[in-house]
Order: sequence, then C-alpha cells, then structure tokens
Amino acid sequence: MLPPGVGQWRLSMQEVSLDIAVSADSAIVWQDERLYLLDQRLLPGREVFIECTDVQGVAQAIRAMVVRGAPAIGISAAYGIGLAVRARHLSDPLHWREVLEADYQTLAEARPTAVNLFWAIAHMRRFIASIDDTDPAARVLAEAIEIHRCDRADNRRIGEFGAGLIEGPTAVITHCNAGGLATGGWGTALGVIRSAHAQGRIHQVYADETRPWLQGARLTAWELARDAIPVKVIADSAAPARMAAGGVGWVIVGADRIAANGDVANKIGTYGLAVAARHHGVRVLVAAPTSTIDPETPSGAEIPIEQRSADEVLQYAGQRIAADAVDAWNPVFDVTPAELVDAIVTERGVIEKPNPARLAEHLAGE
Amino acid sequence: MLPPGVGQWRLSMQEVSLDIAVSADSAIVWQDERLYLLDQRLLPGREVFIECTDVQGVAQAIRAMVVRGAPAIGISAAYGIGLAVRARHLSDPLHWREVLEADYQTLAEARPTAVNLFWAIAHMRRFIASIDDTDPAARVLAEAIEIHRCDRADNRRIGEFGAGLIEGPTAVITHCNAGGLATGGWGTALGVIRSAHAQGRIHQVYADETRPWLQGARLTAWELARDAIPVKVIADSAAPARMAAGGVGWVIVGADRIAANGDVANKIGTYGLAVAARHHGVRVLVAAPTSTIDPETPSGAEIPIEQRSADEVLQYAGQRIAADAVDAWNPVFDVTPAELVDAIVTERGVIEKPNPARLAEHLAGE
Repeated sequence: MLPPGVGQWRLSMQEVSLDIAVSADSAIVWQDERLYLLDQRLLPGREVFIECTDVQGVAQAIRAMVVRGAPAIGISAAYGIGLAVRARHLSDPLHWREVLEADYQTLAEARPTAVNLFWAIAHMRRFIASIDDTDPAARVLAEAIEIHRCDRADNRRIGEFGAGLIEGPTAVITHCNAGGLATGGWGTALGVIRSAHAQGRIHQVYADETRPWLQGARLTAWELARDAIPVKVIADSAAPARMAAGGVGWVIVGADRIAANGDVANKIGTYGLAVAARHHGVRVLVAAPTSTIDPETPSGAEIPIEQRSADEVLQYAGQRIAADAVDAWNPVFDVTPAELVDAIVTERGVIEKPNPARLAEHLAGE
Repeated sequence: MLPPGVGQWRLSMQEVSLDIAVSADSAIVWQDERLYLLDQRLLPGREVFIECTDVQGVAQAIRAMVVRGAPAIGISAAYGIGLAVRARHLSDPLHWREVLEADYQTLAEARPTAVNLFWAIAHMRRFIASIDDTDPAARVLAEAIEIHRCDRADNRRIGEFGAGLIEGPTAVITHCNAGGLATGGWGTALGVIRSAHAQGRIHQVYADETRPWLQGARLTAWELARDAIPVKVIADSAAPARMAAGGVGWVIVGADRIAANGDVANKIGTYGLAVAARHHGVRVLVAAPTSTIDPETPSGAEIPIEQRSADEVLQYAGQRIAADAVDAWNPVFDVTPAELVDAIVTERGVIEKPNPARLAEHLAGE
C-alpha cells in the first residue's frame, strides 16, 4: 500500500537488490563503498533498496522520504557528505572544500525543518575543517560510519535505561515510528520496547496507525512483527478506549524536538495520547537522544507548528477522499507539555518528571 | 475514493439516475411509489442512487452500507416493510400477514446490532397489527413516510435546542457523520451545527476524518460543504492539538446508544475527543433522538463493545497497509461516561450534566 501521494514522486535514484537480510536494522546500509537506503515509502509491501551514488541522490532520497525519521536523516546526510567529498576531491584535489559548499546547500534544502539534518551538516563541516587534504574521502566516510555506529550504540543504551522504568509485564501504546527505520538501528521508542520485551516487561504493543502517513501501521508494525514482538494496530482514535479497557501501563514515543523545559514536539497525535494517558493513570515515556534536546528553545510555545499539505489528509494514494470544496488542517506535529511526560530517556539516562533544571543538569552531566 | 473493502460487495440492487438535487436531505427518497437510497459508500466521488424494488433490496442496501446511520437505517427498514406488504398483499390478499414474518427476519438480519432497525421493525409490526386488510400497502407506506417526516422534524428541533446552548461565534469539532445522511434529513449533531451556523453561533467546523471508515472526511465534509458551512478535515489525532490552539468551544457528536445514566456509546474516537475536551475546557454536546436513550441499559458498562474486522484497519480499498503477520484491535465504538458530557440534546429539549434522574425525568416528560 502506497502512502498518500507516492505516485507524484519521480525518482532518478536506482532500485537495487541487496544480498542482505532486510530488517529495521538495515534501513541504512554502507557496503562496498556504496550507500543503500531501504525505501520506507514502499514498506511493508515491498522491500527495496535505493542506491545513492552521489550527494544529489541522498538529497533526493531525503526529500522524497525514502528515508525518514530525524536520526536516520542525519546519518544519511553524513554519508551523503562523504560521497560528496569523494566526488569533489577526485575532480579537483586542490579546491574540493570550496565546491563542497553547494553540496551542503543541496542537503540542507532537502528537508528544511529537520534539525538532525542541520546537526549532521554542521558536524561534518567541523570534521572536514579539522582534517588535511590526505585522502579526505576515506576519513569523512569513516566519520559517517562512526556517527552511524554511535547512534546504534546510543539507542541500545536508551533501550536499557527505558526498560528499567517499566515494571511490567504490561501492554504499551506507541505512536508513529521511532524505530530502527527512523534511526541508525534498534530505535528510540522501539528500542525501549525491544529491550523491555526481551526482559519480559512488555507483552503486547498497540501501534497507533498514525494518520495521515500511517507510519505506525506500515513501519512500526512491520518492525515489531519482524522481531516477533506481539503487535496490534489500532486506529489513532481507539487509543483512549484501549486505555480504558485496561492493561496498558505506558505510552512510549519518540521526539522530534525537546525544549529546554521538557516540552516535547512529536508526530501529530502524541499530545492527545499523553492527555488520555494522564486521564487513565497511564505513564508517558519519551525516548530520544540528547541531540534532540534543544537548549535554545525555552518551551514548546517557541516551536513552530509546521503545516503540511492538506492533500495528505484529503487524498489517499493519489485519490481524493473528501469533496473537492473541502480543506484540511494538517499540522505535522504537536507539542506535549512537560507536565504530561513522566520520563524522558536519553543515551545518558532518565529524566523523571522533566523540568528546566533537570534537563540542564542532564545536558551538563556529560 | 472507496472505503475499505468496498470491492467485496456485489450488488444486485440497481443504480439509477434521479432528477432531483442530491443533498444530505435526499439520502432516502420515496418517489413515484419507489424507494431510492443515495449510495453513501461512493460519496463524495460519485452521487448515485440505488433503487430498492423490494424488501430484499432494502436489506441488501442496509447490509452493504449503501445506507448507514442508526436513524437512516430505521427509516429505510420502515419503507422496506411497506414494499414487503405491497408485494405480499398483491400475491396473497388473504395470508399476507403470515408470509410477512420472513421479511421482518430478512431485515433484522441485515445489521444485527442496529437498535433503530429493531425499533422500526417493532413499530411497523404494531402498526400492521392495528389495521385491517383494506389496501394495507398504502397505509403501511404512509406510515413509513410519517416516520421519515417525524425524524426530520425531530432533527430540526434537536438543532434548535442545541444551537441555543452555543453562545459563539465559535469553532466546533465533530466526529463521524451524524448528519442528514445518517438520518431522515438535517441530522442530529450536524443538525445542531446547521442551526447554530444559521444563527451565527458557529463560524468553523473541524471534521475528524474518522478512521477507519472516514465518514468524517467523506460524508460530513461533503454535507457541510454543500451547505456552504466552513469545514476543515483533520486527522482524528489532531483534534487535541486543535483544541490547544484555541477557538474551539464545543465538541458536537451523535450517539449510537445512550444508557440510562447518560453514558454515551458512539463511533470509536468519541471518548478520546471528550477526554481531550475536558482537559481543555471545551464542552461536549451529544445530539440524538430520545429513541437512542435505552432505559434498559443502566450504564455504559453494560454496552457490549462490538469488534469489527481487523481488515478495516489493516487494508485500504482492498489493499493491505500493514505487514501480513500483523493483527489489529478494531472496536466500532467506545463509551463516553456521562461525567464527560455537558449536555444531551433530544427533540424534547436539553439534559444538562446528564445523570440517571435527569434522563428518567426527560423520558417521562412526554
């Protein structure tokens, strides 16, 4: 099943077959000096890799949402800069650094609101400034591999810290996809769920289908089924009724951005889930790397609510659902105030009942 | 856009063109001694009437969800019984009453959980018992027309009573479709919205798309756009964020069944909407005819939560969304406790802060 509007993307990127086990841990594959991205738009129906041969291909894959999820976008961009350095240094070993500026720009424009994308570009720019001209491509690509490795390792730690909070055995509800597909592997919210399931603390996951893009039905359910973790998809609006039916101990979600006071911006629907959780005494766990915490954003009020195309709601797979005269209100995320969050879990540990002092302390305690 | 699984229905009912203005008030048309039903499965993309020539056709239309919405199903069944009497009396003027039993059975099996269907069958059975054999078809059909007329008139009253509660001008959120399409015309929840909009009390409607069947995106938005009432479709999960953004004064919904204590069973998602409304100080109005109040059901706990096919969530228009191994939890409605309901509005008036005594008083005060 194709997500809304998939037909409108034309790809020059190349579909390839890879002789590897496809899983949520292989969404970004660097192999034989090439970058392969699992095409998340086609999951779960088709498991196809896209080969990105140059930075333009990576930018196109980000723009077209072949790869999605804040950490996964950042990692892909880091590899993209490695590919760019290889091409630029090969064609002009003296002035490759200058021409690279255009490549940073190409990547930055691929998803203009993605914080992790800018983080990756800034990180790689600093790294490139720190090295000399001796085989820079190999060293920049090695740095991309290291970013990727660190993200996986961080997610394992997030998983362990998060699992420690869950007494269980309990059922949990998750929203959207903060899994291996959205990261370098293992996942943040799904990392916690994987670790807690392995420890017998979670016996059932309810995955919100997550309209309008259905990342929950398409991606989260696919990931969990692959790992033989019991999962049932629910309509987003069924989550409060599921809580009322009993047995749900936690809501476990990721984050797009966390403000300095602990307010959490995440996929639309997270806020309503947190409101319903509080009403039912269900606890809320937000799993994200510390890079998601933005000390420059005092509170959720300063996070702009990005509106996406009404067509995402009004069309499905290119076909109109609603009458022609009808408009939609389609914010891509919402803000959950810190007071509705029981714990933020990062690779460094747990912030219970988040507030500005606790977040500052957490960030300072490197 | 076809709703989930529409391809699996095979219809022997006949599509016809009617020379009338198609609107939410013409979903059930009795014209030239024939019954026509607007095929709601095809809205808003196609406006097609189905001609039901006999009671089997009506039962098939109910089963296949050509017609949906509790009051609309009841009205259609009443016409169906009129068609049955015409056929049975014509073929056997002496024993038509006995053979009619099979027709009641056919209708009752069309949607076994529809309370209004049984109400209509019981009402028509009593009516038929009260008349003699002189041209019974004409009289039974006249009774069906009267049921239809009364429902419209009741909805006008519900609209006026409900509008009186809304100070406004304000925005409101509605869920599913409790409109002209779901009733004999004008609608219950949408009746309140129509009346309040006409009085300048509502300036904007947000229609939950209402997964999995998308009645909000497909039907409610179509109805309101036809009436030039400003409407925006939102993903169900966006409603709490919309409340947080401000300007929403009321949630206005219909009901499938109201228990004696004021607990409300309605389309899945209504409960979460009411929880979010309470969190934001948004008021909740439930609009329904008194026939929806069931004094035999003490509270919501006694209302069974009907589970529908997982495919409604896992498939879309016959195509699989989720991985094959994945299951779904798909209750068709949820229960909103009376304490989250600010007012129940019927054709008789308003029950503020519903409780068992107020509901009993309301029902007694005929």
